[in-house]
Amino acid sequence: MSHPFFSYHGPLSISEISKILKVKIDITKNSQILDVKDLLNAEQNYLTFLHSNKYLDIAKSTKASYCVTTAKLKDNLPKTCEPIVVENVLLAISMITQKLYPNSVEDEFDRKVENIEKTNLKDKTECGENILVGENVSIGSNCLIGHNSIIEKNVKIGNNCKIGSNTIIRNTLIKDNVTILDNCVIGKKGFGFFPNRSKNIRYPHIGIVIINENCEIGSGATIDRGSMSNTEIGKNTFLDNQVHIAHNVKIGENTIIAGQVGIAGSSIIGNNVRIGGQAGISGHLKIGDNVDIAGGSGVIKDISSNNKVMGYPAKNIREFLKENR
Amino acid sequence: MSHPFFSYHGPLSISEISKILKVKIDITKNSQILDVKDLLNAEQNYLTFLHSNKYLDIAKSTKASYCVTTAKLKDNLPKTCEPIVVENVLLAISMITQKLYPNSVEDEFDRKVENIEKTNLKDKTECGENILVGENVSIGSNCLIGHNSIIEKNVKIGNNCKIGSNTIIRNTLIKDNVTILDNCVIGKKGFGFFPNRSKNIRYPHIGIVIINENCEIGSGATIDRGSMSNTEIGKNTFLDNQVHIAHNVKIGENTIIAGQVGIAGSSIIGNNVRIGGQAGISGHLKIGDNVDIAGGSGVIKDISSNNKVMGYPAKNIREFLKENR
Amino acid sequence: MSHPFFSYHGPLSISEISKILKVKIDITKNSQILDVKDLLNAEQNYLTFLHSNKYLDIAKSTKASYCVTTAKLKDNLPKTCEPIVVENVLLAISMITQKLYPNSVEDEFDRKVENIEKTNLKDKTECGENILVGENVSIGSNCLIGHNSIIEKNVKIGNNCKIGSNTIIRNTLIKDNVTILDNCVIGKKGFGFFPNRSKNIRYPHIGIVIINENCEIGSGATIDRGSMSNTEIGKNTFLDNQVHIAHNVKIGENTIIAGQVGIAGSSIIGNNVRIGGQAGISGHLKIGDNVDIAGGSGVIKDISSNNKVMGYPAKNIREFLKENR
Repeated sequence: MSHPFFSYHGPLSISEISKILKVKIDITKNSQILDVKDLLNAEQNYLTFLHSNKYLDIAKSTKASYCVTTAKLKDNLPKTCEPIVVENVLLAISMITQKLYPNSVEDEFDRKVENIEKTNLKDKTECGENILVGENVSIGSNCLIGHNSIIEKNVKIGNNCKIGSNTIIRNTLIKDNVTILDNCVIGKKGFGFFPNRSKNIRYPHIGIVIINENCEIGSGATIDRGSMSNTEIGKNTFLDNQVHIAHNVKIGENTIIAGQVGIAGSSIIGNNVRIGGQAGISGHLKIGDNVDIAGGSGVIKDISSNNKVMGYPAKNIREFLKENR
Repeated sequence: MSHPFFSYHGPLSISEISKILKVKIDITKNSQILDVKDLLNAEQNYLTFLHSNKYLDIAKSTKASYCVTTAKLKDNLPKTCEPIVVENVLLAISMITQKLYPNSVEDEFDRKVENIEKTNLKDKTECGENILVGENVSIGSNCLIGHNSIIEKNVKIGNNCKIGSNTIIRNTLIKDNVTILDNCVIGKKGFGFFPNRSKNIRYPHIGIVIINENCEIGSGATIDRGSMSNTEIGKNTFLDNQVHIAHNVKIGENTIIAGQVGIAGSSIIGNNVRIGGQAGISGHLKIGDNVDIAGGSGVIKDISSNNKVMGYPAKNIREFLKENR
Repeated sequence: MSHPFFSYHGPLSISEISKILKVKIDITKNSQILDVKDLLNAEQNYLTFLHSNKYLDIAKSTKASYCVTTAKLKDNLPKTCEPIVVENVLLAISMITQKLYPNSVEDEFDRKVENIEKTNLKDKTECGENILVGENVSIGSNCLIGHNSIIEKNVKIGNNCKIGSNTIIRNTLIKDNVTILDNCVIGKKGFGFFPNRSKNIRYPHIGIVIINENCEIGSGATIDRGSMSNTEIGKNTFLDNQVHIAHNVKIGENTIIAGQVGIAGSSIIGNNVRIGGQAGISGHLKIGDNVDIAGGSGVIKDISSNNKVMGYPAKNIREFLKENR
C-alpha cells in the first residue's frame, strides 16, 4: 500500500470520502479504501475512477471496490465495484489522492538535504563541490555527480551513472549507465491542474520518473513526473539539449530526440523513433515504433509504426515535401 | 521621481540633454527634466518621446514639457510640450534614460548579496541551503525558498510564496501565493539594443517584472523585465516549463501557457487565454480575452477576443483543420 | 601536435590503428600517426578521413599521410596518402580520435575546481559568491563573474567580459567585451553518436567553442563544442534567451538571434543575419549574409545572401505571406 516515495496518509474511511466529495455513498461494503489506482491496477479495497467511455472494456473487469464515475457511466462497472457518482471525476479523484498523499501536490524543497560529503559514497563514486543530497537517496558505484547539483528526496541512481552540474533530481529512478547533463530539472510535478477563476486547483502527482539503462539526457532538459502513472524513458534513448518531457509520457528504447523537442502529457512514443529538433508532439497520442518525425514538425494525431512524417500538422514526409517544393 | 529599483542620477539640465543628443534645444521653458516617461504617463518637467504616428492621439494631450520626436511628427504636440527633433527617436530616448538610470543597461551581479541566514526571515518562512539575498529585498511570511537560489537586488516577495531551487530573481515584484519553480531567470534586462556594426548599443531597461497573486511559473522559464514599461503576469495565470516571456509583455488573468511557448516583446495577452505548447507570439501584438491558441501555432497578427486559432501563420482553427485534413 | 584543451595520448602506431579498426594497413610509409584532422588541415604524418564525394576536390590535395575512407572513394587520394579502407568512415575516425584524446568523449566534472577566491584575479575583475574555477582557466581584467557559476577546465576569458550567475563554461575561448547571461551551458560535448541497439557509441568532441568580441549570449542558452572543428560565434553577434547552438555551427558577425531559436549541427550562418524567435535551422546548411529569417520558420535548405524567408519549410517571405493571406 505504502508508496515508495510519497508519505501515505491513508487509509480513508468511506464516510471521510463522502464528506470530501460531498456525495452520499452506499456503505454496504468495506468501510475504508486503502489506495487509489487506475482501473487496471486497482485491487480489492482500492478506489478507482472511470471518466470516459474509452475505458469501458477495462472498467468491466476492474477489481476495485469503489469507483468514482458519472451517472452516465456507472452501469459499466462490475457488481463488485460500488460507483461513487460525481460531476467532475478527475477533480474528485484528485481530491482523494491528495488526501492520501498530501506531499504530492507541490514540490517543497527538501528540508533534510545535507552536503554529499556526509553521505557514505560507494566504491569509485566521485562527486564535485556543493552537492546536496536529500532523504531516501541512494547512489550506485562508479558514478560521477557534478558541482552544485541537488539530488533531492526519493532518488535511486544505479551504477556507472554520470550526473552533470547544477542539475536537480527528485522522485526519480535512474538505472545503470545513465548520463544526465547540466542544468536539468527531473522529477518535479507536472503541469496539471483544474482551471478555476479564483485559484487553480493543482492535482497531485504520485507518479515518478524512470530513466532506463544507457540513456542520455541533454542539458537544460525538464522531465516531469507522472500524475497517476509514471513518466518513463526506455533503454538507450538519447535526448539532446532543452528537451521538455511532460507528465505521464512513456518513451521506448533506442529512440533519439533532438534539441528543443517538446512532448506533451501522457503521449506514448515507441522504440527506434527519431524526432528532429524543435518538433512538438501533442498530448495523449500514440507514436509507433521506427517512426521518423522531421525537425520542426507538429504532431497532432497518432502515427503508426514505420512511418516518416513532417509538417504541421505532421503528415507523410514525401507528401509534405511534394506539396512544399 | 526616484525609481523604486534603479538608482536615479537626475535631474538633467536641458543643456546637458542638448549635448548628449547633439541637437539645439530651445530653452524657453524649464531648464531641467526630472524623468523620462511615455506620452501617457509623463508629467510636467518630464521628457517623453513620439516616434510613430500610431500615437498621435495620445501625443496631443501629453503633459510632458519636452518630447523627443522627428521633424515630421513634431507638429502633433501640444503647445505646452517643446519638441526635441532628432533622427532616431528611440536611440535618443535610450541615451537620456541611460544617463538618468545608468545601472539599468546591464545586469551586473549584486555585490551586496549575503547568505539568507543573515536575513531576518518572517514568521513561518523557511529556506534551503546556499541561498543568496541581495539589496532591497523583502520576503513575506509563510514562504519557501529553495536551495541555491539567488534573490538578487530589488525583489519584493509576498506571503505564501514558493520559490524553487537554482532560480535567479531580480527587479521583480511578486504578490501573494505565487509559485516559481526551479532554474528560472526572472527580471533580467530584455533583448533590446540598437544594432551597430562595430558594437551594438544596449538600451536601458527601467521596467520591472510584476507577477500577480496565485501565479505559477514553470521550471527553466525566462521572464525579462520591461524597458520603459513593466512586464506583467496577471492573477492566477500558470506557465509550464521552458517558457520565454520577453520585455514589456503583459499577460492577463487566468491564462494558461503550456511548455516552451515564447512571447516576443511588448505583446499583450488577455484574460482566460490558453496557449498550447511551443506556440510563438510575435512582438507588439494584442491577443484578446478567451482566446485559444493551439500548440505549435505562430501568431503574427492581433487576435480579437473569443477566437480559436491554429497554424503558422495562425488562423481560425476550423479553417486550418479543414485545409489540413 | 598537442591539443590546447584535451590531453593527448598519441602518437599511435599504424599497427595499433590496424588493431583498433580490424583492417590490414600497408605499412610502407611512416610507422605512426601524430594527429587526426580534416582533409584540409591534416599535415604529413596525420590521419584524415574521406566519407562523401562532396569532398573529392579537397581530397586530391590533402597532405595527410593516411586517410580512412571507403573502397569506392579510395582512388581519389593523392599518391602521398595511403587509404585505410573501412565500412563506416565516421565510426572509424571516431575510434581513432577517442584513442588520441580519451577525455573528449564525455564531460566528467572537473575534479580540480577550486573556489575562485583562490584564483589571483586580474585588475578590476570582480566576482560573486560560490564560483568554481577549474584547471587551465584564465580570466582577463575588468571582468565580472556572477554567483554560483562554474568556469570549468579549459576556458580563456578576455578583458571586460561579464559572465552571469549559475552559468557553466568549459572548453571555450571568450574574446574581449563578451557578455554571457545566467544559467547557460557552454562548451559541453555535442549530441553526436552512432546509434547502436545495445548501446549508442558517443563520438569524441575535440573542437572548442569560440565566442568573439562584443557578443552577448542570453540566459538559458546551450552552445555545444565542436566534434572535429570548432563551434564559433562571430563578433558583435547577439543571442536572446533559451537559444540552442549545436556542435560545429559557425555564426558570422553582427548577427541577431531571437529567443528559443535552434541551430542544428554543422550549419554555417553568415554576417548581418537576423533570425526571429523559435526559428529552427536544420543541420549542415549554409545561410548567406544579410539574410532575414522570420520567427517560427523552419529552414531546411541553404539560403543565399540578401534573402528574406519565412515559413516551414522556409521560402521567400513575400511568396509565403501572399499564399497565407
